[in-house]
Amino acid sequence: MARVSQEHLDARRRQILDGAAHCFARNGFHATSMQDVLREVDLSAGAVYRYFSGKEELIGAIVTEVLDEVRDAFETAALRRPPETPDILVEHVMERVLATDAGVKAGGPSGLARLLVQVWTETLRNEELAALMREGYEKVRAAWIKVVEAYQEAGLMRADIPAGDIARTMIATCQGFAAQHALFGEVPIKVLQNGVRGLMSMGGPVAAGPEAG
Amino acid sequence: MARVSQEHLDARRRQILDGAAHCFARNGFHATSMQDVLREVDLSAGAVYRYFSGKEELIGAIVTEVLDEVRDAFETAALRRPPETPDILVEHVMERVLATDAGVKAGGPSGLARLLVQVWTETLRNEELAALMREGYEKVRAAWIKVVEAYQEAGLMRADIPAGDIARTMIATCQGFAAQHALFGEVPIKVLQNGVRGLMSMGGPVAAGPEAG
Repeated sequence: MARVSQEHLDARRRQILDGAAHCFARNGFHATSMQDVLREVDLSAGAVYRYFSGKEELIGAIVTEVLDEVRDAFETAALRRPPETPDILVEHVMERVLATDAGVKAGGPSGLARLLVQVWTETLRNEELAALMREGYEKVRAAWIKVVEAYQEAGLMRADIPAGDIARTMIATCQGFAAQHALFGEVPIKVLQNGVRGLMSMGGPVAAGPEAG
Repeated sequence: MARVSQEHLDARRRQILDGAAHCFARNGFHATSMQDVLREVDLSAGAVYRYFSGKEELIGAIVTEVLDEVRDAFETAALRRPPETPDILVEHVMERVLATDAGVKAGGPSGLARLLVQVWTETLRNEELAALMREGYEKVRAAWIKVVEAYQEAGLMRADIPAGDIARTMIATCQGFAAQHALFGEVPIKVLQNGVRGLMSMGGPVAAGPEAG
């Protein structure tokens, strides 16, 4: 039996995952067959099944990578000190999520966004992947809450609103923008940055009002 | 042949759509079979196939209804005059999208959110539904741009940022919140309202800065 280096095995595994991610981003998990994946990676069934038992295992591996990638983008952006203002923070997250070259290569800048929307759908019916997603989300939320608390401590933001609510909303803004990217095509990240700046600029009268939650 | 009133036909069609929406929200479009739908609505295959040729047609009808419902929620909220501030606007949209009793009954307050995430995925691979979605989104964006322009004209918001960017971002915040609702379970809408208020309160220093886009 030929000796195969770990490096070779890893590269081959990577090649299959990238090709599969490409197919999935284009046609969705359910409309993609293993035949499509084999054609995309230009390998024999034997070569591919050596690494993955089938489509379900491939989907699981891709979902895990996408969730990891996205969680890391959200966490890394939130760890910069001093914390960046929300407009800069969302820009940095989106740069990683939409334009990343690392990790999952899903073909084109909106590839990962397209995969992400599908990942969401997949977690709705797969408890194992849903748990993975919730776990990553809790980490992200904890990191973003710290950022919001830093704004509040510095007097940059109303301190009478739960930091968790604001963190959740900032994360939602990024998730929604990623969804738009997947659904309506690429948009410059500057659009989101501008939008958050616009919201931030409303300040004054509303901020101090008695209508506070 | 028995004479059947239009009212009866409509009610039956509604019953099938509601049952199917229920199934789809729970298990997804792809994991749901026509057998599941028949069991849910407690009708014979003959009765159901009289209204829908199969699962694809049912999915198409449900996607169309969900998109209509969501578009209407976004448009209606934006038509109130004087325009509501962003925190109130997003609250009104989410009340309609998450807690609606009208239109698609998908079972539980997060049913429509769960359906919505699936609808997004479905539009990624179905050009007809994608076109419908884009069309609705353009209408929503036009209505929200008018709201942002009203803020800007009233001096409530920086006027040097494209209204389209801010509208897009406000819509993204709602979309992301709906995704969180579907993925992580129900959250009071007040959370989003608070979060938008927190962002709005950052105002001052950033608003006037030279870093404007």
